[in-house]
Amino acid sequence: MLPILTVFASSPDGGMGHARDFRVRWALEEVGQPYEVRTVSFAAMKEPAHLARHPFGQIPTYEEGDLVLFESGAIALHIAERHLGLLPEDANARARAITWMFAALSTVEVPIIEWENADMLESGESWHKARMPAVEGRIRTRLAALSARLGAADWLDGGFSAGDLVMIGVLRRLGGSGFLEETPNLAAYAARGEARPAFQRAYEAQLPENAARPSRRD
Amino acid sequence: MLPILTVFASSPDGGMGHARDFRVRWALEEVGQPYEVRTVSFAAMKEPAHLARHPFGQIPTYEEGDLVLFESGAIALHIAERHLGLLPEDANARARAITWMFAALSTVEVPIIEWENADMLESGESWHKARMPAVEGRIRTRLAALSARLGAADWLDGGFSAGDLVMIGVLRRLGGSGFLEETPNLAAYAARGEARPAFQRAYEAQLPENAARPSRRD
Repeated sequence: MLPILTVFASSPDGGMGHARDFRVRWALEEVGQPYEVRTVSFAAMKEPAHLARHPFGQIPTYEEGDLVLFESGAIALHIAERHLGLLPEDANARARAITWMFAALSTVEVPIIEWENADMLESGESWHKARMPAVEGRIRTRLAALSARLGAADWLDGGFSAGDLVMIGVLRRLGGSGFLEETPNLAAYAARGEARPAFQRAYEAQLPENAARPSRRD
Repeated sequence: MLPILTVFASSPDGGMGHARDFRVRWALEEVGQPYEVRTVSFAAMKEPAHLARHPFGQIPTYEEGDLVLFESGAIALHIAERHLGLLPEDANARARAITWMFAALSTVEVPIIEWENADMLESGESWHKARMPAVEGRIRTRLAALSARLGAADWLDGGFSAGDLVMIGVLRRLGGSGFLEETPNLAAYAARGEARPAFQRAYEAQLPENAARPSRRD
């Protein structure tokens, strides 16, 4: 029985791979684990059947037999712990890779979400334009620190890991904004992730024409 | 050799236990692991010695021999994985507890950080007051969903776990604002965490009069 991933019936990004199911699709492709997909509409996400899987009414969710998980970071970690290829064998290196997963979600993604909220929810406000430079500044502060740590390395800590996967998934939400291009080593880092065959397969799978052909539906 | 935790030399919360080292202190107390403390000033947090430990120049950091970790969630998970008491034995229950750690940091804390930023960084702006109801609304949306899932249970999934520890650590950042009191089962949930002997020991340890007596200094 294949694991089942719940994804947007119609992703607001139109197939750019910015939705949070993408990180899980990518992780599954990296470890070679096939999966099924269940699509949910925005209305269905707030109904009891989906809230039973995801208390906050979001995507993705992940089902594997009796186990139901939510949160892209937790699902990616679950996959990484149960397959080879996304976490180093060495215990200390493994703990550091997991640290980068948390850093991506707790430290780097937070100002990106604030910036997305400002764009989606506040762009009609008279003060929107005046507020944006500070919001953008908080993103640049994080990118500068990440860029300094990455330096000339290919990945954040040794070989490619789930930490890089989640971090690149987060950085890609900035796609098209120009932020990443301001820090060339981060733009190259994201491009390095995007060039991976598993990334390409996950990207293809989430395109609207493919994501609309799930093997399961509610 | 004891693990070393890096904490604020002078916490901006004045000892309310809202700083992110608190979650780690609490986890260490739950598993009975003594630790040493290194204090850093705000200036020292941005200097090379600390940036080598924490690329984003924040606290906490955690050192255990050669291993250096940052991110409170990653450190709490590391402690929970290496000691008994913070994660269930059953593999599925363990994955669900870890999901709650990510949910606390990626889903519940995010609007709280936005609200703190608004309060700390934007309170002098002419539009600050007009903007706050929407920011507060995003917190209430998350609390309502969390409250619905918790229901009448003591903890989020079976017995107390690292998921509850991190979630309660996050919810406590709302302390004094009145948000928690609007959802009585969450207020009771946080109080249940605060009543634990390990919480009490961690709280005592971070009070300004005690935090100022670390066993190590930069």
